[in-house]
Amino acid sequence: IMNFLGISLNFSLGKSSRLKMAKNTNIRISLPAVCFVWQIAMIILFGVFIRYDEESDTHWIEHRRKKNISTNLENDFYYRYPSFQDVHVMIFVGFGFLMTFLKRYSFGGVGFNFLIAAFGIQWALLMQGWFHHLDEHDWKIKIGVENLINADFCVASCLIAYGACLGKVSPVQLMVLTLFGVTLFAVEEYIILELLHAKDAGGSMVIHTFGAYYGLTISWVLYRPLLSQSKHLQGSVYHSDVFAMIGTLFLWMYWPSFNSAIADHGDGQHRAVINTYLALASSVLTTFAISSISQNNGKLDMVHIQNATLAGGVAMGTASEFMITPYGSLIVGFCSGIVSTFGYLFLTPFMEKTLKIQDTCGIHNLHAMPGVIGGIVGAITAASASESVYGQEGLINTFDFKDAVANRTVNIQGGYQAAALFVAIAFGLVGGALVGGILKLPIWGDPADVNCFDDDVYWEVPEEDENFLSRHPNMNHATSIPDV
Amino acid sequence: IMNFLGISLNFSLGKSSRLKMAKNTNIRISLPAVCFVWQIAMIILFGVFIRYDEESDTHWIEHRRKKNISTNLENDFYYRYPSFQDVHVMIFVGFGFLMTFLKRYSFGGVGFNFLIAAFGIQWALLMQGWFHHLDEHDWKIKIGVENLINADFCVASCLIAYGACLGKVSPVQLMVLTLFGVTLFAVEEYIILELLHAKDAGGSMVIHTFGAYYGLTISWVLYRPLLSQSKHLQGSVYHSDVFAMIGTLFLWMYWPSFNSAIADHGDGQHRAVINTYLALASSVLTTFAISSISQNNGKLDMVHIQNATLAGGVAMGTASEFMITPYGSLIVGFCSGIVSTFGYLFLTPFMEKTLKIQDTCGIHNLHAMPGVIGGIVGAITAASASESVYGQEGLINTFDFKDAVANRTVNIQGGYQAAALFVAIAFGLVGGALVGGILKLPIWGDPADVNCFDDDVYWEVPEEDENFLSRHPNMNHATSIPDV
Amino acid sequence: IMNFLGISLNFSLGKSSRLKMAKNTNIRISLPAVCFVWQIAMIILFGVFIRYDEESDTHWIEHRRKKNISTNLENDFYYRYPSFQDVHVMIFVGFGFLMTFLKRYSFGGVGFNFLIAAFGIQWALLMQGWFHHLDEHDWKIKIGVENLINADFCVASCLIAYGACLGKVSPVQLMVLTLFGVTLFAVEEYIILELLHAKDAGGSMVIHTFGAYYGLTISWVLYRPLLSQSKHLQGSVYHSDVFAMIGTLFLWMYWPSFNSAIADHGDGQHRAVINTYLALASSVLTTFAISSISQNNGKLDMVHIQNATLAGGVAMGTASEFMITPYGSLIVGFCSGIVSTFGYLFLTPFMEKTLKIQDTCGIHNLHAMPGVIGGIVGAITAASASESVYGQEGLINTFDFKDAVANRTVNIQGGYQAAALFVAIAFGLVGGALVGGILKLPIWGDPADVNCFDDDVYWEVPEEDENFLSRHPNMNHATSIPDV
Repeated sequence: IMNFLGISLNFSLGKSSRLKMAKNTNIRISLPAVCFVWQIAMIILFGVFIRYDEESDTHWIEHRRKKNISTNLENDFYYRYPSFQDVHVMIFVGFGFLMTFLKRYSFGGVGFNFLIAAFGIQWALLMQGWFHHLDEHDWKIKIGVENLINADFCVASCLIAYGACLGKVSPVQLMVLTLFGVTLFAVEEYIILELLHAKDAGGSMVIHTFGAYYGLTISWVLYRPLLSQSKHLQGSVYHSDVFAMIGTLFLWMYWPSFNSAIADHGDGQHRAVINTYLALASSVLTTFAISSISQNNGKLDMVHIQNATLAGGVAMGTASEFMITPYGSLIVGFCSGIVSTFGYLFLTPFMEKTLKIQDTCGIHNLHAMPGVIGGIVGAITAASASESVYGQEGLINTFDFKDAVANRTVNIQGGYQAAALFVAIAFGLVGGALVGGILKLPIWGDPADVNCFDDDVYWEVPEEDENFLSRHPNMNHATSIPDV
Repeated sequence: IMNFLGISLNFSLGKSSRLKMAKNTNIRISLPAVCFVWQIAMIILFGVFIRYDEESDTHWIEHRRKKNISTNLENDFYYRYPSFQDVHVMIFVGFGFLMTFLKRYSFGGVGFNFLIAAFGIQWALLMQGWFHHLDEHDWKIKIGVENLINADFCVASCLIAYGACLGKVSPVQLMVLTLFGVTLFAVEEYIILELLHAKDAGGSMVIHTFGAYYGLTISWVLYRPLLSQSKHLQGSVYHSDVFAMIGTLFLWMYWPSFNSAIADHGDGQHRAVINTYLALASSVLTTFAISSISQNNGKLDMVHIQNATLAGGVAMGTASEFMITPYGSLIVGFCSGIVSTFGYLFLTPFMEKTLKIQDTCGIHNLHAMPGVIGGIVGAITAASASESVYGQEGLINTFDFKDAVANRTVNIQGGYQAAALFVAIAFGLVGGALVGGILKLPIWGDPADVNCFDDDVYWEVPEEDENFLSRHPNMNHATSIPDV
Repeated sequence: IMNFLGISLNFSLGKSSRLKMAKNTNIRISLPAVCFVWQIAMIILFGVFIRYDEESDTHWIEHRRKKNISTNLENDFYYRYPSFQDVHVMIFVGFGFLMTFLKRYSFGGVGFNFLIAAFGIQWALLMQGWFHHLDEHDWKIKIGVENLINADFCVASCLIAYGACLGKVSPVQLMVLTLFGVTLFAVEEYIILELLHAKDAGGSMVIHTFGAYYGLTISWVLYRPLLSQSKHLQGSVYHSDVFAMIGTLFLWMYWPSFNSAIADHGDGQHRAVINTYLALASSVLTTFAISSISQNNGKLDMVHIQNATLAGGVAMGTASEFMITPYGSLIVGFCSGIVSTFGYLFLTPFMEKTLKIQDTCGIHNLHAMPGVIGGIVGAITAASASESVYGQEGLINTFDFKDAVANRTVNIQGGYQAAALFVAIAFGLVGGALVGGILKLPIWGDPADVNCFDDDVYWEVPEEDENFLSRHPNMNHATSIPDV
């Protein structure tokens, strides 16, 4: 028997190696090369362009005196640092652990998320700096805590895109996806925020809509007709679902910080928190409702709970700063929770079968649709703003109606908000098609269809060894079978 | 062999289905109905009653000018937002993951915690608003960050009550428990804080004592004499205990924020943090000591470490604002860690056998007893306060001896603190009996005794499938046994 | 067959009991005794020495008036509390979960970390208070939030030392290690910060270098030649590696708070955050690069990702406050990520074989080497500081060139920084040798070589029972084998 077992093991190993050989997933040259070269490029570019801003420079004390700032607390650091840390947790633990739900791709979920976010924030500081913060006198980018937040935001769009490709791409491809994603983001953001002068504090359009369509289009270009060969790895196990809830909850809890992190000091941040808090609470209830009603015996589906509960935060990204009212926030969350859960039930299978878009994490349901809802809600809320509700100064402050846009009316602002939504979608689709084309080249070490969703391709995975199991006789038959 | 195995499996499935059929746990109508109807009710009530307060409204800039407030930082948001986020993490990750310790009820632990907290915070904003913050001019409730914190606090009492019922109730029952729990809480809190003018910044009485007796009384009414039928599921597995430690630690670390979140600006918040930090540290050591001394070979019990280490935070809830002194805080933590661990060792079994109270998480040990200790410590500390220690202004500020209670002495304050403790217990017992009676109705889809502590009743649980296991030959006998 | 199985189980149990008997690991007297006596000593010493400082005392309102402080926000609490909470998370969740990576020592990793940190912060408040904050008028130590941060910092050095000994010592030994570690730390810190007037805001030298050499020397004294007997438990399993990533990420995300928590108000904290954020991002990329290049097929190793990605934060500990420039920070992270990963690849095996130092967590790679790098970088950066870069006031503020050291030049400061590094190493080596000697006494209940890395020695570990497994027929053969 032992012999036979040995043979069957050999056979199974042989078979599995053969299948793995179908594609070369060796990244021993490409991954280190990309990491080293790009990191060195970052150092050089930072050396040329990046400096501390006046609030993080030792000259702050002189700046304070010059500007007659009475206290160190007026340093923007104290307004934004708590929110920054919450956003930072969302990027690395939130997105990272949300992607650990697959039974054998938890290392790749949280690990590659870590890699590309760490690269992306550096590249984003440069790209966003060139577009938004380039000092015209000395051609330097001066950074402070708000830049760090914006870099995290920018990277979020690439992590969303990763969600569509989870388990099907190599880390080298993810680095490429991030390089171009950040670049596209910076341009798109510049058009939306600076040229169109649209408002999007929490990034329903700039981050979520763009990121989702970017990822979905890439996934469409990289369509794998034989992906069902790795179907046995496409689900979760009990504890991987619990790990994913860590990601869900940290995203859910800190989303008010996400939507308020770069809002206006004072009432702006305060209101954005309230609105987001309420929208999120509301979408939890409708998610549970739809999940239960859709299943036999009313059983809940962890995929819905892990994802659609967050839709309220996405959909509140644009309007969070506005006077949308508390009950308006509840309505937004109500609708987006429903739409998102229905997406998981009906749209994801439809998209995979008919549109040939394989969306591992269902980002279309969690980011694309709620992001579009958020853009529309933002446009409507802006268009219906009034001095009677906002107050004269409040209206000007909230929409920054000054300088070039001092005479803009709320109706026109609504139109620009709508235009911004189309810009975000267009950048996602066109950018995704281009980058998808690049990623289709057969040089990136992506896995064969049969090896998708398997950490074993890119990670040293620990074996569940006999010595460990021998302590747990109920789980172990290796010692008993020879005795037969 | 395979045949026999098949038959035995069928038999076991048949048997298990039969047992499951004994009670109807189908919640496909009831859960969605409750979620939808109540969420719509929230939207309507928010539409009628809830508005932004002056610090989260766009009129803040005018308000600032009128009140001569020099900086945006004086917006309460900047005093309380970091603490709010910490409390938020305690509610959703802290309580949620603490309840993942059961081997097959982790989904229910963290998932239902998520559901009822998301509903409860909305209902709490209304209930607490009507009692504490109703503007008498326009009959609106004006909310800001402090209301969000208070809503989280209110929900905490229901999550504590959930701890006693964990694994034995349906999500519909939990929604009902939360609806009435929040309602009772708001009334009890009004009596204690407004009518009695007692102090309870961290809620030893208002939150913990009330919540624990509410849950224990419900559990007593819902007593299941045959619960031992699901005894095999009432324990933990190795990794579920590690998951629970996530909950423990986030509760433990952020408890200083909990007890200081709504304390007075300045020294009040500062002192509450120090006192709570010390009490918690102290209860860790006594918990380890009692846990070790009570077991064979001094082995530690994870149940104690996961729970009793937190007793210091509970017991410091009332007195955290007071000048209890750092060593006073250590003493409170010292005692409550001991009491709580002894509770797990002796009281929980006694209560189950003799008093017919089944307390899944041992909330009597973690919340009821330390909560009562906290109430007593608060009363004594208040009664022994003096101008020599607090300073004249400090005493007035700490106990809010102004307006109607301007002439109250510390002794009288101590008496009112003690009275508040009885109010909290009474509301817990009476409220729990009433709500327990309602939950005993056979319409809520609760599980049969044999199906308690099993996620399979309310969740789609992933199967550990063969394809996965075939990669791990040591854990798999399905392929080898046929070869015998 | 069943009989045989029973016999073989008995035999295996008998054998394992026999091996366990080789050493007495019963801590039923010693652990409770240490916890009780030391906690009571803390209470007494706190009673004699520790009081609230002027910002956490009810006299704050009078203090404010006297000092003409315009707002409660100027209370140091509001400058430091968010950072404090982040540091607190690093100590308990960060270090705790990083040490859960072993397959059967997760309870010990997170649990003993919890115990010794809870004791250590109390002892640190006293030790650091006596050395740094003793009021010469009334011989009291007045504590506020900065003391809490410093206590957490102090404990970090002992948790680092624990990393070298993980799985090989008893909790009683760990308490002793912490008692002496905190004591040594306070003296070393006093020499470095007060006598040498070196700067070390994030503790590259004071915390990391000292802690690492302290732990490594202890591990060297406690060398176990037959440790390979428990080799089967020295690795991870799939989900324990995911648990460890929780620790990694919370350390990584909150490290900017660690390095900025006690930096100067205003630009000091702001700059420390930026520098640390960048150094960390950079070391992620070089860690992935070296990890991939070193393995067959470029597969990544979780040990590297869990640890070496943090090297940038360690190496930025001293210079984080300085004007090291953003690209300087990237360079520091770049180098320390490489050095740390190479350490795991080559130094750890070399040290174990040749130097007889068994370093379970590889603290030499994560703390010792990056800590030394950080000290050197700090010395060089300080020595090359100039008024043209810092501004006149900025230079004085950053290096505190006032009072006794008002005339110190940056070159001399650089020399003192270098001297500080040697003090930290010397304290680690000498202190570790002494404490290692004490811990070698055969009275502490440490495990036998064969029982290292096994929670079963000090914890009640849940059994994976049959009833649970019978629901998962694929994982269970106990019911089927009798039928053979």
